[in-house]
This record gives sequence, C-alpha cells and structure tokens, in this order.
Amino acid sequence: MRVSPINPTVDFSTEGVQHGFLRLPYSRDDSAWGSIMIPVTSVKNGEGPTALLTGGNHGDEYEGPIALFDLARRLKAEEVAGRVIIVPAMNYPAFLAGTRTSPVDKGNMNRSFPGAPDGTVTQKIADYFQRTLLPLADIVLDFHSGGKTLDFLPFCAAHILPDKAQEAKAFDLVSAFGAPWSMKMLEIDAVGMYDTAAEEMGKVFITTELGGGGTATARSAGIAKAGVANVLKAAGILKGTVNVAETTWLDMPDGNCFSFAEDGGLIEPLYDLGDQVRNGDVVARIYPIGRTGSAPLEVRAKMDGILAARHFPGLVKPGDCVSVLASVVME
Amino acid sequence: MRVSPINPTVDFSTEGVQHGFLRLPYSRDDSAWGSIMIPVTSVKNGEGPTALLTGGNHGDEYEGPIALFDLARRLKAEEVAGRVIIVPAMNYPAFLAGTRTSPVDKGNMNRSFPGAPDGTVTQKIADYFQRTLLPLADIVLDFHSGGKTLDFLPFCAAHILPDKAQEAKAFDLVSAFGAPWSMKMLEIDAVGMYDTAAEEMGKVFITTELGGGGTATARSAGIAKAGVANVLKAAGILKGTVNVAETTWLDMPDGNCFSFAEDGGLIEPLYDLGDQVRNGDVVARIYPIGRTGSAPLEVRAKMDGILAARHFPGLVKPGDCVSVLASVVME
Amino acid sequence: MRVSPINPTVDFSTEGVQHGFLRLPYSRDDSAWGSIMIPVTSVKNGEGPTALLTGGNHGDEYEGPIALFDLARRLKAEEVAGRVIIVPAMNYPAFLAGTRTSPVDKGNMNRSFPGAPDGTVTQKIADYFQRTLLPLADIVLDFHSGGKTLDFLPFCAAHILPDKAQEAKAFDLVSAFGAPWSMKMLEIDAVGMYDTAAEEMGKVFITTELGGGGTATARSAGIAKAGVANVLKAAGILKGTVNVAETTWLDMPDGNCFSFAEDGGLIEPLYDLGDQVRNGDVVARIYPIGRTGSAPLEVRAKMDGILAARHFPGLVKPGDCVSVLASVVME
Amino acid sequence: MRVSPINPTVDFSTEGVQHGFLRLPYSRDDSAWGSIMIPVTSVKNGEGPTALLTGGNHGDEYEGPIALFDLARRLKAEEVAGRVIIVPAMNYPAFLAGTRTSPVDKGNMNRSFPGAPDGTVTQKIADYFQRTLLPLADIVLDFHSGGKTLDFLPFCAAHILPDKAQEAKAFDLVSAFGAPWSMKMLEIDAVGMYDTAAEEMGKVFITTELGGGGTATARSAGIAKAGVANVLKAAGILKGTVNVAETTWLDMPDGNCFSFAEDGGLIEPLYDLGDQVRNGDVVARIYPIGRTGSAPLEVRAKMDGILAARHFPGLVKPGDCVSVLASVVME
Amino acid sequence: MRVSPINPTVDFSTEGVQHGFLRLPYSRDDSAWGSIMIPVTSVKNGEGPTALLTGGNHGDEYEGPIALFDLARRLKAEEVAGRVIIVPAMNYPAFLAGTRTSPVDKGNMNRSFPGAPDGTVTQKIADYFQRTLLPLADIVLDFHSGGKTLDFLPFCAAHILPDKAQEAKAFDLVSAFGAPWSMKMLEIDAVGMYDTAAEEMGKVFITTELGGGGTATARSAGIAKAGVANVLKAAGILKGTVNVAETTWLDMPDGNCFSFAEDGGLIEPLYDLGDQVRNGDVVARIYPIGRTGSAPLEVRAKMDGILAARHFPGLVKPGDCVSVLASVVME
Amino acid sequence: MRVSPINPTVDFSTEGVQHGFLRLPYSRDDSAWGSIMIPVTSVKNGEGPTALLTGGNHGDEYEGPIALFDLARRLKAEEVAGRVIIVPAMNYPAFLAGTRTSPVDKGNMNRSFPGAPDGTVTQKIADYFQRTLLPLADIVLDFHSGGKTLDFLPFCAAHILPDKAQEAKAFDLVSAFGAPWSMKMLEIDAVGMYDTAAEEMGKVFITTELGGGGTATARSAGIAKAGVANVLKAAGILKGTVNVAETTWLDMPDGNCFSFAEDGGLIEPLYDLGDQVRNGDVVARIYPIGRTGSAPLEVRAKMDGILAARHFPGLVKPGDCVSVLASVVME
Repeated sequence: MRVSPINPTVDFSTEGVQHGFLRLPYSRDDSAWGSIMIPVTSVKNGEGPTALLTGGNHGDEYEGPIALFDLARRLKAEEVAGRVIIVPAMNYPAFLAGTRTSPVDKGNMNRSFPGAPDGTVTQKIADYFQRTLLPLADIVLDFHSGGKTLDFLPFCAAHILPDKAQEAKAFDLVSAFGAPWSMKMLEIDAVGMYDTAAEEMGKVFITTELGGGGTATARSAGIAKAGVANVLKAAGILKGTVNVAETTWLDMPDGNCFSFAEDGGLIEPLYDLGDQVRNGDVVARIYPIGRTGSAPLEVRAKMDGILAARHFPGLVKPGDCVSVLASVVME
Repeated sequence: MRVSPINPTVDFSTEGVQHGFLRLPYSRDDSAWGSIMIPVTSVKNGEGPTALLTGGNHGDEYEGPIALFDLARRLKAEEVAGRVIIVPAMNYPAFLAGTRTSPVDKGNMNRSFPGAPDGTVTQKIADYFQRTLLPLADIVLDFHSGGKTLDFLPFCAAHILPDKAQEAKAFDLVSAFGAPWSMKMLEIDAVGMYDTAAEEMGKVFITTELGGGGTATARSAGIAKAGVANVLKAAGILKGTVNVAETTWLDMPDGNCFSFAEDGGLIEPLYDLGDQVRNGDVVARIYPIGRTGSAPLEVRAKMDGILAARHFPGLVKPGDCVSVLASVVME
Repeated sequence: MRVSPINPTVDFSTEGVQHGFLRLPYSRDDSAWGSIMIPVTSVKNGEGPTALLTGGNHGDEYEGPIALFDLARRLKAEEVAGRVIIVPAMNYPAFLAGTRTSPVDKGNMNRSFPGAPDGTVTQKIADYFQRTLLPLADIVLDFHSGGKTLDFLPFCAAHILPDKAQEAKAFDLVSAFGAPWSMKMLEIDAVGMYDTAAEEMGKVFITTELGGGGTATARSAGIAKAGVANVLKAAGILKGTVNVAETTWLDMPDGNCFSFAEDGGLIEPLYDLGDQVRNGDVVARIYPIGRTGSAPLEVRAKMDGILAARHFPGLVKPGDCVSVLASVVME
Repeated sequence: MRVSPINPTVDFSTEGVQHGFLRLPYSRDDSAWGSIMIPVTSVKNGEGPTALLTGGNHGDEYEGPIALFDLARRLKAEEVAGRVIIVPAMNYPAFLAGTRTSPVDKGNMNRSFPGAPDGTVTQKIADYFQRTLLPLADIVLDFHSGGKTLDFLPFCAAHILPDKAQEAKAFDLVSAFGAPWSMKMLEIDAVGMYDTAAEEMGKVFITTELGGGGTATARSAGIAKAGVANVLKAAGILKGTVNVAETTWLDMPDGNCFSFAEDGGLIEPLYDLGDQVRNGDVVARIYPIGRTGSAPLEVRAKMDGILAARHFPGLVKPGDCVSVLASVVME
Repeated sequence: MRVSPINPTVDFSTEGVQHGFLRLPYSRDDSAWGSIMIPVTSVKNGEGPTALLTGGNHGDEYEGPIALFDLARRLKAEEVAGRVIIVPAMNYPAFLAGTRTSPVDKGNMNRSFPGAPDGTVTQKIADYFQRTLLPLADIVLDFHSGGKTLDFLPFCAAHILPDKAQEAKAFDLVSAFGAPWSMKMLEIDAVGMYDTAAEEMGKVFITTELGGGGTATARSAGIAKAGVANVLKAAGILKGTVNVAETTWLDMPDGNCFSFAEDGGLIEPLYDLGDQVRNGDVVARIYPIGRTGSAPLEVRAKMDGILAARHFPGLVKPGDCVSVLASVVME
Repeated sequence: MRVSPINPTVDFSTEGVQHGFLRLPYSRDDSAWGSIMIPVTSVKNGEGPTALLTGGNHGDEYEGPIALFDLARRLKAEEVAGRVIIVPAMNYPAFLAGTRTSPVDKGNMNRSFPGAPDGTVTQKIADYFQRTLLPLADIVLDFHSGGKTLDFLPFCAAHILPDKAQEAKAFDLVSAFGAPWSMKMLEIDAVGMYDTAAEEMGKVFITTELGGGGTATARSAGIAKAGVANVLKAAGILKGTVNVAETTWLDMPDGNCFSFAEDGGLIEPLYDLGDQVRNGDVVARIYPIGRTGSAPLEVRAKMDGILAARHFPGLVKPGDCVSVLASVVME
C-alpha cells in the first residue's frame, strides 16, 4: 500500500513538548501546491503508556477542541509519564468551516475508516490515524458532542465489546472521566467508525457526547477539561488522583429509542434533556409553516426513558431524528 | 404614496376566526408572476382593543412563532373581546430559510421601518405593517430571541419612553407577561426599528428575548405561550386573570455592558447565562486555531453584572459580540 | 441629470446597415475596467418613421430574440424607408444567463423604467432606452413570451389608453402582426414598465406573449418572424403588403382571471392552453410530495374563459400563478 | 455484501393498502442523524403478479409522478389481484430539487445500477431496488419524459432483447399502454441502467418518454394515467379490459438519428415534434449571441425520419443533442 | 445627517503610536450583533501636517497594503513631526476576500463617495472617510495597482486640477514618490471617486498604479515602501531627505488610449508593458476556444504609445479592456 | 475493459489537416443528452513519427494553449513528415472555467492517470489519452505553467528515468525547445501523472513551466511558440533547423527546495524569480491582517539557490508553497 502523503512536522519519538502540524498536500484551484496544516501536539517523557486525544472528528462539536487546545498549551513534559498525542481538530477542514463534514469532500470522518492514502482528503486523514497514530496509542479518547443539529445530555461512553477485558478497561476510564451521565453503547452499525478501528486494534477507546447545538458552555467545557485530566490520571500518564464525580449510567436498548420526523415544519419540544418520558407521550409537535390554523403533527415516544438527545434547530426536516430516549441502568 | 402591493386574503374588520395570507407579488427567475404568501390569522369578536402579535421579525428566533402558531390554531372568537391579529413569521422568507435576514434581499426587518411600497420585499412588508397593521393595533407584542448567533436569559422588555403614561402601560404588560427576567431597555440607535415605529404611533409596545441559538426548549416555548396569554388577559382581550410569575428586573446601563472579540478563533466561555460577573473578569478565552501551543486572547468584563447574553457558535469572528452584562434593578 | 455611461458603437443617424454594440462600462471583480456589450443593429434609408424592435426584455423568452437576430442579419438598407433599430436582447446579462432578471443586480427590466444613469446595470440600460432610444422611435414592438415559468397562448397585444387615437394605431398594428390570438390589455399596475414609458411619450407601442417554458418552437418562432415583418409593412417602413392572418380577440376583464397556489407540490393540469373553462372548474390539482395517499389541493377557476396562460414547471410553489383565463371578445 | 441501510416503514408482504416511506439514513451537515424519506405505497390483495411502478428516476420528469401519486391515492386493495408497489419519485432528492440528477451526489439514477449499500445516496437507492424491490416484481413500468432539456413525442417503449419470449411480453405491454407512439429501442450502451437491471433478472420491463421541458400537460398526464391503468389490466392485476388506443410504431435505427450542436447560441427550431424531416434538411439554426449580423450555424438531419425528440431550452451549448429522428415501422 | 455608526478604538488627537480598529456594526445572518473591524494606526507627534495613507481601496491590490502594514509596524512617534493616519485596507471586507469589490454589498469603494451613514457597508466606510478622516488630512496618498484583472507599469500619479497651486503640490509629491513612471491623469468621469472627494476639500492627493495581477513582487513592493517614505519626507512629516529616483512622465491623451475586446476567448498578447506600440499595430489576438482552426480576432492600437496597462487573465471576455497606451511627456 | 465513451470526429489515420472534437457524452441537469466537445487537430502527411502536443492539462495555464491554438491554425499538411496531434486544452472543462481542476468533478488531470472509461469526466479523458492517443505517439510535449497561484522561471524539463536512452532523447528535446532555463526533474511522487503514463509506455516525454499567475505575456507566449516549433524540427516532423537558444540548466535536489507558509496573511516577497538566495535568508514576510502593529512571520530558505518558483496571490493561506529554489547545474 502507498505511503501516507501526510508529513508530520513533529517527531513522536522525541522527548519533550512539540507543537507542529500534520501537513497534508492538497492541490486545488486556489493553491496549486498547497497543503492542509492540521495542528498536533506531542508531549513525551520517558516510558509509559501513550494516550491519543482527539476532538473535531465532527467539525461542529466544541467541548473536545476547547479541552484539547487548552491541554496542549498547558501540558509540560515533566508532568507526564509516557506520551500524550493531541489532535484537537481531527477533521480540520470541517472544524475550520464549523461543519460536521469536510467542506473539501463532504467526508464524515467517523464513517471514513480505515481511510486510504490515495483517496479523498478525509480518507487520507483517516488512513494516517489508522496506520500511524492509532498503532502508537494505548488509550484513545475521542470527544464528540451533538453538533449544530443535535443536543445531548453530557455523557462519556464506551462500547459493549466481545473482549470483556478490553471492555472493562474502557468502562473504568468512562467512570474516571466523571461526566454527569455515562453510557453503555451498542452500535447497530459500526462500519467506518474511528471507534471500531481503534477497538479492533485492541486499544482502550472511550468517547463522549457533551452537549450540542454547535456551541459550548462554561459548564460543558468544564466537564471536558476535568474529564481529560481524570482519564490521563487514571491511565497513569498524569500524576495525581482522579477527581471522583457522581454519574448516572444509561443505555440505549434498541431502535425504539429513536423518533423520526415524517413531516417538516416548526418544532415545539414538549420535554427537555433529562426529563422522564413515558411510552406514547408526545415528545414534540411539528407545525406546518405554510399556513396558520392547521393541526401540528405529533411525534410520540416509543419507550419509557430519559430524554438523552433531541433535535436542535427550530425547523425540522422530514427524516430528522427528533428525540433519543435512554434507560437508566440500575446498579 | 403608492398603495401597498400586498393583498390580504382575510378581512380584518370581519367577525370570527380567519386564517389566510398576506399575498405579496414577487416576480423572479423561478416564478414570473409569483407571490410570497405570509400566513396571518385574525380573530375578532365585538368591541374591544386590538392586539397585534408577531414572531419571526428575525427568521431564526423560534419561541415567538411556536407560541403564535399554537395560539392561532387554538383561539376561538368567543374567547376574545376585541381583536387579535397574529403574524407568526413577519419576515416570512427569512423564517422559511431559518436565517436572521431575508434570503431575498438580505433585509433585516427590524432595521427596515417605515419600509416602502416600491422597495425590496422586506421593505414592502415593513410598509404594510407601518401603514396598515400598526394603525389597527392598540397593543403590540413582538417576539424575539437570540437567533443562531446569540443566547439570552429569557426576558420580556419595554423601552424607556418620553411619554411616561405610554411607558407605564408597557411596563405593566411586561410584568403581566411574567418571564423569569424583565428588562428596561434604552436603545442607543432605534432608527428603522419596528419598536420605534409602533411607539411613535402611541401604541403600547413590548418585546422579548427568550433564549437563542436557533432553537427553542420546552421551557422557553412554555414561557412564550404563557406570556402571550397573560398579555392578552392583562389587556382585557382574553378572559381570565393573569397567571402571576416572579421576575427579576434588569437594565443595560451603558455601552460597557458589551464585550467584542478583536480576534477570531475557538471560544471558551468562562461564565454561563445568569452568572454574576465582576468588572475585569475574563468572560471568555479565544484560542487561535491555526496551531496548538499559543496563548488564547482573553475577553474581559467592563462592568459588574449578570451575564444576560452571550455569543453562541463555537467559533467566533473578529468583531462579534462576546457577552452582554446587565445590572439587577433593586426595587 | 448625468449623461448615460453607455457608448454606442453605431451612429443611429448614419445611413445603411450597422451592426455594433451599446457598450456599458461595468467594473467588477472579474474585470476591473470591463464592459457589457449589448448587440444592436441600425438600418436606415432616407426619410420615414423609426421602428424600435426589442426582445429579451426578460432574458428567458426566445421568440423575440430569434425573430430579431434573424431580421438584423437579413435586413438590407434598400428594403427600408426610414429606420429600424433592433436590440434583440434588451436585458443582455439576463439573456446570456437564460434568466428572467439580470444575474448582475436581479433587475427586472420591465419594472426598472425610467431607469437611472448612475443606478444598477439594469437601471442604466433602462435609462438609455428612456432618454436615447425611445425618443428616436415612432413605433415600438417589444417581444415577450412566458419565460421558464409560464406558458401562453400566442398573442400580440396593446393597452387600453387614454389617448384613443394612439390606442387605435396600436390596435391596428396588433391586427397587422397577425398572431393567432390578440389581446386588449388593461394593466392594473403599470409603474416601471417599458410599455408605459413608451406610451407616455406618445409612441405607438405593441407587445406580445408568444409561448413560454423557456423554449421556442418552429411554429412560435414563425409567428414572431411573420409578425415583425407585417408590422414593419403596416408602418410603411418595409415594402409589401401585410400578410393577413385570422386572429381571435381576447381580454382579461378583472383579477378573477388569475388563480394562485396556496400550497406547493406536484401540479397536475386538468386543462390545456386554449381550452374552455367554466367558473368553479378544477383547473389543476396540487399533490403534496412528502408522502403518498394524501388528497391533492384543488385549484379552481373563478370565471368562465379560455385558458390563456398556465404555470409551466412540474413543481409549484405557494403563491405561484397557476392559471390565467381570458374572455373571447365578440366583434 | 452489507445489508441495505434502507428501512421501509411498510411491509410488502402485508395485505391491503399501505402508505409509507423507504427511510434512508443520511448524516450530513444540516442533520447529523437525519434520513431521506422516499414515499412508497404497497397495495396487496391475495395471489397474483406484482407490478413495480416508478416515476422520478430522473427528477425533472413529471408525467410518471402525476400518474403514480394519483394511482397511489385511488387504488383500493379490493380492485387488485396480486400486488402493486408504487414509488412515484425514485430519485427522491432529485425530484424534490426538480433536477435530473441528485443534488446530494449528482447521481444519475439510471446510470447507477446495480448500486451499492455503502456507496452514495443514489447508489444506496439503486441497490435497494436491485436487491429488494426488483426481485419482488413480475412486471416493471418505469416512467420517463424528456426533463428540462429535451422534449419528446409521447411514446411507450421496450427493448430488443436476446430472450424473445421476454421481449414479446414487453411489447405486448407497450401496446396495452396505448400511447400515441410506441418505440422499439436498441440501446447502444445500457450499462448502469435500471432497465437492464430489471431485464437481466427476467422481468417484463417497459418504459416511456411522454413529453418534456420539465412540465406536464393535461394531455400528457392523461396518457400516463390511462397507460398505467391499461398495463395493470393487461397484466391481470387490475380488473377490466384494456382501453385500446391507436399507436404508431417507431424505431431509432442507428447513431445517425442524433444531431449535436458544435457551437452554442440561440437556437431556432425549423421543425416541430412529429414533423417529417429529410436527410440533409436544416433542422435548426444556432445564432451566435455575441453580436448581430453573423450567419447562424445550421444543424442538419443525417437521415429521413419523424422528429421524435428535440433540444428544449432556448439557448444551446456546444455538445447538446439538438434533434432525434425516428423511422416509422411499417407493419 | 446621522452620525457615522463607525466607532474608532484609537483617538486621533492623542500623541504617540496607537494600533486599533474602525469598528463598524454589521448585523447579519452569521453574527446578529457583529461588527467589521478595520485596522487603523495613528502616529502623532506634536504639531505638523497630517498624512492620510490608504491601501486596499480595491481589495485585490497589494503593494499599498504591504507598504502600509510595514510602515504601521515600524513607525515610531519620535520619527514624526505631525501625524500619520494609516488604513492599510480601506475596503476591508474586499481585502479579506481578495476581491476588487466588497463581498458584502458588491461596493466599489472608489465609486462610493461621498458615502452614507445609513447606506451599505461600503457606503458607511466611504462616509467615515468623507466626514471624519479626510477633514483631518493635509496630504492623502491612496495606493492602487491593477488588481487581478489588469497589469500596470509602476507609476505614481496626480490629476490635472482647476486649482493650479493644489495641482503643483500634488505633482511635486508624485516626483518625490519616485516611481519609475509618473502619470498626469485627466479622469473622464470622476464621480464617486475618493480622489475627487479629497481634491474637492483642497487636499493634496496622489495615487499610484504599481503592478497588478493580484500579486506583488519584491520590486513592486519596494517601490511602494520607498515611495511612501519619500512622500512623508517631502511633506516634512518624516525627517530625512527624499531618495531621488529617475522617472518618466506619461499621459493618457484621450479615449483612443483604450482598446476593448469585442469577443471573448484566449488572449495572446503581442506586446509587453513598456513596449512602444504604433497606431494600427495588433496588440493582442483573441482565439475562439470552441474549436481549433479558426482565425483569431485581432485587437489593434488606436494611437502611438507605450503599453501602460494590459488585460491580465489568460481568458478575455467581451467588453474587457485589452490595453491602455500612454504618451511619453517630453519635458 | 469497457470501450471509451469518447467519439472523435476526426480520423487520426487520415492524411491532411483535420479540425474536430473529442466528443464525450456527459448527461447532466442542464443537458440530459449533452456532450463535452474537446477541440483536437490532426495533421498527417505520409510516414514519420507522431508528436502528441497538449496544453491545458491544468486549466489555468496559458502559454501552451496559445502556442497550440496558433500552431493548429497555421500548420499545413505539406510542412509535416509524419503526424502531429494537437489538443490545446486537455482538461477542457477546466480550461473553459479558467481553473486548475475540472469544475465538473474537481479532477486534477495530472493526478488522474491511467483514468477509467466509466469514471468521472476527468478520468474518462485520461483514459482516452492512456489507451488511444498515447499509443499513437512517439514524442509527447505537455505544456505547463504556474497557473493562478504559482509563478515560475520559464523552463522546459524532462525527468531522470531508469532507461537512460529514453532519458537522453528527452533531454535532447529539452535542449532543442530552447527555453531560457531547463530543468532536470526527479519527481518524489509521480503516481497518477500524465508524464509517468507516457514514460512508462516508452514515449519521449517533455514538459514545461513557462510563467504563471493565470496570464501569459508576449515574451512567455513567444517562448512556447518557438519551443514547439523547435521540438517538431528536432524530431524531424517539421522541416528546418532548430533555432538554437541559450539555456541555463537547473535541478531541484531535495525537499529543502520548498518553503511552506505556516500562517496565512498578506505576503511580501523579498526576492524575485531568478534571484540568488542563500540558505537562511528570509524569502518572504507574512503579515497578519487582523490588525496593524504585529510582527510578520518570516519564511526562510532552507538551501542556497535560484528562486525558481513563488507563491503568486497577494494573500497566502496556511500550507501554501511560498517558494521553490533550484540549483544551477554546472556543465
């Protein structure tokens, strides 16, 4: 297979703090011999595990980039035992544009793995993670939030895995992260995901959903910053003890957790995130916007649960996901 | 002056409930003899004052349209004493597009008054309000929220006016509205505003800011729905007594309440809406996104106050308003 | 008032055939000192009346430009007594783009009169016709068709005018034109029209609607070519006798001739152009396209008449004109 | 091979009338967990053959969608013996946009077979037809028209096939359809076509070209509605006898039937659809539009025949197909 | 007249070096309460004349911005006697976009004077120069180059003026500037120009054309940097003596200096900047690009002269300015 | 493998001069049965070698198309011994758009080989060269320049090849071309290049870089025209002797020849093309454009050499190539 066209300007085997770029050549109309310069930080100090920390897998999700630009700037080599590799904005063209997918090729990074060295820009970045960065890592934390079109209860999550030892390590890190909510996820379709790529290499992989709407708040950014410090401490890379926080465990049992819109219009939510919803309840009304006086469409819950995610924009399109319910896990 | 090109399909002098359109001819490339069909509802029952209720003055603000599409559908003539005219989406092309300004002519409705019958589409709509609808009204409620780029504490507001009797009636309606917060506003520059147009005709005018981010929540939509019912009751148009709610009064004393970004980047808010901020506090950091390891720009408060509004998107541009502080009014 | 920025490369007072341009300076991002070059032909031979012939007033109407590019190429000075000025594509930027209005400034040429020498590109062209070309003319023929969004029965038309002598001359030219149908038009709102500009200067003005859909057929182009030759003969500018054709006279009595769509969707026409329709008949159905199984909206005729114009595209938007009926004038 | 990501909300094995959707998940910038909702109707009643009826294979062709939205709404289970599956707008994103190809991925549905479950949106839809819907069908009717850029004589058609029994059944259905014209088609290049996919599975496949220009008329929509009823009757799925209509059979013998434009400009057609053209005749003139006075390019016929299709827009581009001639089949 | 909405963050009456912004509120879809932040530097030291230095009047001209960002950074208060106000990018939105005109409103800054405080963004900036900055100035230097579509011999220029004392002072500054070429300009149409606005206030105004193509070279940037230093020295604002350079004086006698393209295509220049051209010479050929083998259009000179400016892009459009000739002034 | 969909309208085996098209069917929204018409000229006279001459491999590079449109028009069969095949604009859609890559599919022609007959438009063109035109050729000359974003010293070039006899023939043709500079190129990554496709077939392949910026000058076009004549003479296809010109040989020893921008901004070049630069010299400054008074970023040379190429636009983006240095080869 061809070598990756990406040239890093940092050397991941070098001790100390390095701030640099993953330089990806990208010839185009407005730059014949141009490149995409993806910021990267490597902090290495002696022996120890490697943590690979990523934000901006989707370009309109902000808690991860905030926590990671902050961490990259503050982290000193002497605080670390092992190595921390930080890519605050993985799908960097999407992050610059403030969009979920790349404006260059419409690539959804989290459906582009394992990537390809001679594919689109998004596939080239995925390939570089697949063949260069993931093999360097022991633990992987990939930050997500709801983006401009969804809003989530703040949670950290890991997947149910066939390798139960690997799974247990991941759930331990989810606990350490210490978000207000924690999720046990079973993906229906995990093809092309970064998560799956990491897990299939045996890495301890955790992810988050920390809010949404294309913004971050002081509270949600604080959860991200505390969480990443906790995870590095739990992994023994950062000194100090994990700052224990209370969390409620959730899971999404089956496809009935989702409700979709069959018509477009103006959406009136009837429940807010964290509210308890009963099977059959109207979770939202959708008003036709072509005229006044018409009855709105009612979108109903198909299970009992906590409202864990919701459609964000004030207008809704046919086929949009209106709500996601989750069950509280009793432990 | 020319007559308005807008033809209503309802007759505002007719008794009963009518749902129809303000039909505005708009010849264009994709419809040679086309029109814009702005939904309107008129509910009239005998003698009494007229309330003119509007949402969607800015097209990406949703609490108003939700409350008004809901009200238009539910309101029965026999419940009313007088007349209620409802236009849930005043800048209807902007509302359809989910944008602050009109996609047709980039018109900001709230800077387009008094409008013009032979101007742009936005000016034609403004002119119709100026010369046809406002003269019919006794009280005017115009719903606003922060839109896609700002987020507000939920408040109802009226202006400090030269006519103190008119002002007092407006503040009484603000109290009746019953939002969690209430604002005494002094506009620096009120030229072109719908507010000013209404106030200069002697109408009792109130407005709101009920959230933002281009979404609505169950809570914020509930405030809007309760508020409009309270206002109609306080005005004697709807039967029943105002549902009294506790509110905290705020004001924006001078230009120091605003902080602007001098650089663009990734914004990390350090306070959330409703937090108490001190003069000189860093309200937000702005990280340069071209590389890791650089110090963020700090945006500081220039007065003591409550965080009443904030920049919403995760990325900020030079010149964007980062925060608005307000003082609590001790009464 | 400022002089027009337009420089013609032909001299309208010179004898003979000249092909040239109306050169309009237009500084823009892709041409700092560029111009718009509007083709024009002047054919002059001794004394006699001047005919000003225009197509492309709307840029997506093709019978006029076909007849006039053809005429400009064929007409010889010795065939003419007087002068013929031909501008086959009046709103030339719109004609190049194949759009009703100008891509430069969205200007609708037929709502831009009297124009302005320091206005938009469309206003500058209108001003040149208003102050330079119309004053040279005795008779004015401006070709129209339905454009991409309407389709018409082929007719030539003139307006009911206060000056009955002027009106009679115009209707004589309509008869001479010899289209299958002829129309007596009473414009509700004639502000900004080229027609009105010409008529107010006392010119004998006629116009057409010769088809539509953004195409031309051999038949409709043939009507245009025969019509312009007949008009020039009737005016004494071209030798030979008018080729008399049978025509049916129509008129549009009032606003009930129009039907508009209140909802968008897939339109099924139930009558074709030229069909007799009765008051109350369903002229078209509009199917909602979000789902199958819903009842279509029915659009009904509001008078008896001949279907003279119809919405053309297969999808219809709220506010679009669905049909125009006309009454046959018994003579 | 992966399972299709498309979830139908109807069950094709259930008796009775069901209106629902083919829900295709489509994550994108404006809907992170959104879907495309393709309307579908299933009508089943006991044993009997299955007809698969499709329109909107190209999104700007309207006779098929009109006939099928109408049929879907009217058809009752008790009228049917067997099953009718109706997808009125196969390339639904293209149909919503009014364009030939999909605005999502520029996919031409009729060049996308057999599709792919992990490909583009258009390929995912094609795959669903290939692996799920076509296998359910006995007869397949796919409606086409000329779209916005071509106009056709109204005909129903089937292909010359290697399996002469399959071919005969198809031509019998073409006769039953009863369009004014019928075509024996020999595709030069059938790779990627829905037609070929169906025929290679041994299905009886027929198609149409019923007009064009991006519109439908009362007459052309009537041909489509009568045709589909006739076909269902001929197949024994609908009760009643075929409404026999006269038809003229045509064929396109070789590549000489096509004429292409070598220059762009304003096109003047010299023949209309259905006219008899002789080899060497000028079928259209193309006027250069940069100046008046230039000779037009002449486009000539390369065989004798009936004008069966023509370029529709008033402007023509280099390489556009100007005309298609067909020979009348003497029987 | 209304006050300007622009707030400067520097105080022009304060001693010393200040770097700040002209903050122009600009409410829009992506920033409800946003602003445009136009960089400005003020350097003041005691009494003395004021120089107002501007680049980026057209946003794709770079020698001026280079010289002025450089000067703004280097200039120390103690080097100055009087005041220097530097706006390196006058039409700042255009400069950010790299376009001649503003992407916000398509405004050509040099045709927008005197501007308007309640007009478009470009008009608001013009108004601020007209009413605030120009009145502060004694001498005004406005840098231009050819932009992306023209290329110029490097020259400094002033206008022939009715006030000969004012004119003489301007030509003295042109000499001091010391570009390789110097131009005596007589504008045909000076309406809306910044030049005229300054001259009509009696200011000593000079301008430049220093290259083009949307680039700058080390040589052309060097001319700009040396020129501005020379001008400030000649005006007595900067200490030191003017660095005298040899210059050739040119003028543009009449409209025959311009040649325009009547057809579009691929342009082959036959002369380069600075070459001597004779009346009737072919200055460029324009190849039709639709086919090979056609003769190119020849564009000819209409006077003798030096090639002073030329069309830059490889493709040319009808109406583009192909060449500008100038006469050497014998002194 | 499928046959190419491209149909040439010329026959390359026919004697004489033929001007025609490579007609590539391209079905799309604005032309259902449309084609792309790529101009081609074939000049054949008896036996002898075949030269394949191409320009417009990148659509914004003009010296090649000028020389080849000129040559195609002038070349007479009797002047030739063998065959000359001329495609002046290889990526014809890109050439029409004036862009490096194709507006149809964003294809970079020089990274699209060997292409595919059922791929994108760009891949279909590449496939036609790969399987049809290259096999006909003995020598191949492919013209390049810097395009809109780079500027080059004018040079002709060939590659270091494993087959030294093939390499020697190529360098002999480079000498014959006679550009002021000549380059020995060693491509780091030659995958997908037309060059490689030709060389791997054993063809004698040469290329050029003759300027840039998206323009051509009389001088650079003259180099191209003289060069192609020289090459045809050296190959024995054209009569006459090579017009010997002096040239300086250069090479690009390793990746240190390139400097890239790590920040965006306004670029001030400190050296011009052809200047001698020393390792460590600042070749350009990049000014931040958000404010005045900040220090510019300095871009430094990483080797000694001649400035052979430079970034062209006045603004630079992160990752853009700022400069390319080359070493003079001492012979």
